[in-house]
Amino acid sequence: MSTLAPKGLQDVVANESSICFIDGGKGILSYRGIDIHELAQKSTFEETTFLLWNGTLPTAAELNDFSHQLAAARQLPDDIITFLRNIPKTASPMEVLRTAVSLLSIYDPDEKSVQHSANVRKSFRLTAQIAMIVAVFDRIRKGKEIVRPDTSLSHAGNFLWMLNGEKPTETATKALDVALILHADHELNASTFAARVIAATLSDMHSAITGAIGALKGPLHGGANEAVMHLLYDIDKAGDDPVEHVRAMLANKEKISGFGHRVYTTEDPRATHLRRMSEDLGKDANPKWYEMSRKIEIFVKDEKKLNANVDFYSASTYTTLGINIDLFTPIFAISRIAGWCAHVIEQHDDNRLIRPRADYTGPAYPAPYVPVAQRAAQTRPLDSEHSA
Amino acid sequence: MSTLAPKGLQDVVANESSICFIDGGKGILSYRGIDIHELAQKSTFEETTFLLWNGTLPTAAELNDFSHQLAAARQLPDDIITFLRNIPKTASPMEVLRTAVSLLSIYDPDEKSVQHSANVRKSFRLTAQIAMIVAVFDRIRKGKEIVRPDTSLSHAGNFLWMLNGEKPTETATKALDVALILHADHELNASTFAARVIAATLSDMHSAITGAIGALKGPLHGGANEAVMHLLYDIDKAGDDPVEHVRAMLANKEKISGFGHRVYTTEDPRATHLRRMSEDLGKDANPKWYEMSRKIEIFVKDEKKLNANVDFYSASTYTTLGINIDLFTPIFAISRIAGWCAHVIEQHDDNRLIRPRADYTGPAYPAPYVPVAQRAAQTRPLDSEHSA
Repeated sequence: MSTLAPKGLQDVVANESSICFIDGGKGILSYRGIDIHELAQKSTFEETTFLLWNGTLPTAAELNDFSHQLAAARQLPDDIITFLRNIPKTASPMEVLRTAVSLLSIYDPDEKSVQHSANVRKSFRLTAQIAMIVAVFDRIRKGKEIVRPDTSLSHAGNFLWMLNGEKPTETATKALDVALILHADHELNASTFAARVIAATLSDMHSAITGAIGALKGPLHGGANEAVMHLLYDIDKAGDDPVEHVRAMLANKEKISGFGHRVYTTEDPRATHLRRMSEDLGKDANPKWYEMSRKIEIFVKDEKKLNANVDFYSASTYTTLGINIDLFTPIFAISRIAGWCAHVIEQHDDNRLIRPRADYTGPAYPAPYVPVAQRAAQTRPLDSEHSA
Repeated sequence: MSTLAPKGLQDVVANESSICFIDGGKGILSYRGIDIHELAQKSTFEETTFLLWNGTLPTAAELNDFSHQLAAARQLPDDIITFLRNIPKTASPMEVLRTAVSLLSIYDPDEKSVQHSANVRKSFRLTAQIAMIVAVFDRIRKGKEIVRPDTSLSHAGNFLWMLNGEKPTETATKALDVALILHADHELNASTFAARVIAATLSDMHSAITGAIGALKGPLHGGANEAVMHLLYDIDKAGDDPVEHVRAMLANKEKISGFGHRVYTTEDPRATHLRRMSEDLGKDANPKWYEMSRKIEIFVKDEKKLNANVDFYSASTYTTLGINIDLFTPIFAISRIAGWCAHVIEQHDDNRLIRPRADYTGPAYPAPYVPVAQRAAQTRPLDSEHSA
């Protein structure tokens, strides 16, 4: 057996992949070799998703076909709608999304197959359905009518339409589309790695995506932009100066969410575009959140040499788009499903079970099986917690 | 960045753990240092679960208290029962279990907390509830009345009671109890590793367990004992000699499920006890499946030098217990939940995000963003599959 890997498998190269290239030191992110700056400026979520699933950019005919297929997949079984109507309205959208995606497998004709073509069909359905589930549940919990999908709209446009029941502006659609491109893949991030570990047992795509949603839900992953927005709200509510508020937090050794990244030692290339989106949207509507964010960014960079990451400006961007804070992580999922699907397809196309080993640190083997009457009382972890 | 790890992270030591010690070369499996042979012969599922969660064996008072807590946790919210009644009866039990566990989080008062004490409370509930969900859904799909839990029975006994609506024999209860002990943990197997990857984002226990169930569902993991039973049924139906049937399969280069293991190079120590269980149960009822299995085991060992693994004799054991083939993997989950919970607790008690890297093998960076009108047609993976 080899030696213990760094904690959290930091910098351990777990598998080969042709999907996403990152150079953290140089601040490079690319999908299939194409720089994220190019894609953010010139591509669409549909085209980027085609790229992630197929390896190269589509021809005009392919893109047209792909966009139609994705729009045509905007269908939810009646049972899923019933399920979303019956679930407690207090449920968190991520719990609802995780459960609904798991439930969807029961209605998917390709459920068990791990063949390339079946996986692609499921990818179309899941990508379309995840956006719909988020919008439909939000309408239901707010006591609003469910909005029927509009196949004439883009993926980003249709989501905003189904969420708000109003045709979105071009700026809003563009801002969300860019956010979806930027979040669509990020190599072996925790949720994608979870999806691959699950898929590698030759379990089905719905199982892998359900697990990925569970991982994304964690505060160290998808939950980070929610924490950024809570900070902005706290500052706003207290009427504090943003810089002084953050200075006090740093003095208190509190973590400022939205800064630094395991992989990037320079600026997160995605932050650049979200900063611009946040600023552009602010100009159209309310510049408050952008301006507050910008002041904090400059201060934290000066003070701690930490760069804003993808989460930092997505908070003000989404809020300025009028999106509820507890939908930030679901929107991350609406985008990342493109990458998750690409990785599950790649895993199944050349599979090997992912099964590492642990370094055992417990009682020495063989520890005796002492008969129950002879066992001495032990201090248990919970005893100290209970008495604290 | 370090060099590429072996495919599937084979033999990569991903983290420290004090839960399970395995020496694959010597055929040793132990929980908290205590040999699995000792536990299989002397312990119960309740005591073994205490051991996994707390690190040492319980005193008599602790064991009594623990068993009562686990029995008292045999409760499902009414909404879960309604959900199980409404789900299509054709759904596979693993899809139902994965979805129901995800749904349960919405009703769990400790949902978000990753504190040790909250995780232990959730572990009691999930361990009790997973067994109930499997039994309740099986009753519903067969058009039978749901059986109320009996808190006077052991975990194994209560499951058989709720599944069959008859008080189980001592031999049956004992056989299932031993099977639950044997499957309760196995270090960083794929489902447990998936649970830890999910938990390491500080996501909640229900997310981690939902993902683990998804991983266990795969044919390379929990699904293997189902494949063993399908083989036994095929042989029986054809009226073939078991050895000649398997000889023909090997000549055909077909894989025989239930043999060999990534970790063990000698006999899987769990197989020893399941072989005995299968034999004992066969004596009471129908020895056919045991005898057929034994012949195959001896032949494959002679012919291929491959040892039977945990899945091989669990197939005949469960079938002789009258359990449906599509409940084999759910029963694995009913046991492995003990280990999953122990690993999620351990992960959350000393957490670090699990986020490895990939070795990029795609188009060289920077690949150009060619405008759509200038893109050449490419051969797509699906084209060849479609034309095949």
